[in-house]
Amino acid sequence: MKLYDFTPAPNPRRVRIFLAEKGIKVPMEQIDLMSRAQLKPEFLAVNPQGTVPALVLDDGTVISEVVAICRYFEAVQPEPRLFGTTPAEQALVTMWEHIFELDGMLAIGEAFRNSVERFKDRALPGQLNHPQIPALVERGRRRTVHFFDKLEACLADRPYVAGGSYSIADITAMASVDFAKRMDYAIPEGNAHSRRWYEAVSSRPSAAA
Amino acid sequence: MKLYDFTPAPNPRRVRIFLAEKGIKVPMEQIDLMSRAQLKPEFLAVNPQGTVPALVLDDGTVISEVVAICRYFEAVQPEPRLFGTTPAEQALVTMWEHIFELDGMLAIGEAFRNSVERFKDRALPGQLNHPQIPALVERGRRRTVHFFDKLEACLADRPYVAGGSYSIADITAMASVDFAKRMDYAIPEGNAHSRRWYEAVSSRPSAAA
Repeated sequence: MKLYDFTPAPNPRRVRIFLAEKGIKVPMEQIDLMSRAQLKPEFLAVNPQGTVPALVLDDGTVISEVVAICRYFEAVQPEPRLFGTTPAEQALVTMWEHIFELDGMLAIGEAFRNSVERFKDRALPGQLNHPQIPALVERGRRRTVHFFDKLEACLADRPYVAGGSYSIADITAMASVDFAKRMDYAIPEGNAHSRRWYEAVSSRPSAAA
Repeated sequence: MKLYDFTPAPNPRRVRIFLAEKGIKVPMEQIDLMSRAQLKPEFLAVNPQGTVPALVLDDGTVISEVVAICRYFEAVQPEPRLFGTTPAEQALVTMWEHIFELDGMLAIGEAFRNSVERFKDRALPGQLNHPQIPALVERGRRRTVHFFDKLEACLADRPYVAGGSYSIADITAMASVDFAKRMDYAIPEGNAHSRRWYEAVSSRPSAAA
């Protein structure tokens, strides 16, 4: 088994945190996204999506997409449960993970990738090159501000994003907050619930993974 | 229990197909997205995300996001399995569902919502209004073409999107193909694997849901 990783990137970090919470160690190989190694033929032969992270199982099965890789490890080692236990918990974890992926990670990525010079022709991840679109910087920034509002509302009545227990939804939300720092966004001063939560999740040992 | 639905929209359809495959019937209520009923205070009090579909459980728990609603029903009634069975199958279903949501549904939605008059200030779903961005029509169209390539490559060596069994990944991919018709895209003539697959999945009784 091997996990293709790139330490500085926010998406592979979500998997590393998940594995740290499970106490699972997997052999890793770095794919240097800075030199676009994910688009070279050697890596596309492994993961045709041209994305990192990617997990290769011992039988050669390749799994891309953060949530899919994490789902694999949840199935092979259910404890501690990071996708919820009861049907309603499972649904709420899936829901909040999805919301914060789209309204957090993707929204922040929209502002980031459309404004930073080195993503000039790489405004979206994956095989296709896309030029930056200036109007998306503004839209991404509006969405990033809204992400912080949504996070605060979500956490108003519960300790963790999806309820009473830490889950993959917290990982995605925390990774979003940290990703937003690259655009100089921080949790607003007045967002007391988010600040309390961020303090708790980012002081877990897994956050350093 | 109640499922908020809007028959003409592609995302609620994904849930209806899933329920039809499971043989589950749920009371439904239409939320007229054409008159923007999803953004009215009455509905935002139910689902603050301002999106349809949304499922309300008997205890008042609200679940939004297609994949989360489907995950709930998979947990309460596992058979027939639509999220895979073994750990690797579960991961592959999650992976392909995610790929075709982002590179299918969202890509096509990018072209569609940025070009159609009635989405003038609604280029993204959810609470915030976003103006259309003309450059996204072109980008969305390029991504739609790429979606068909990706679907064809995916189906080259297997009967269904995620392997040997029909799954939620087929539902998302089929809904994407049908959504693309609204932009006058069809599976290209030469894409024999996709055509064979589409014929099979769209002739299942659930496709009419």
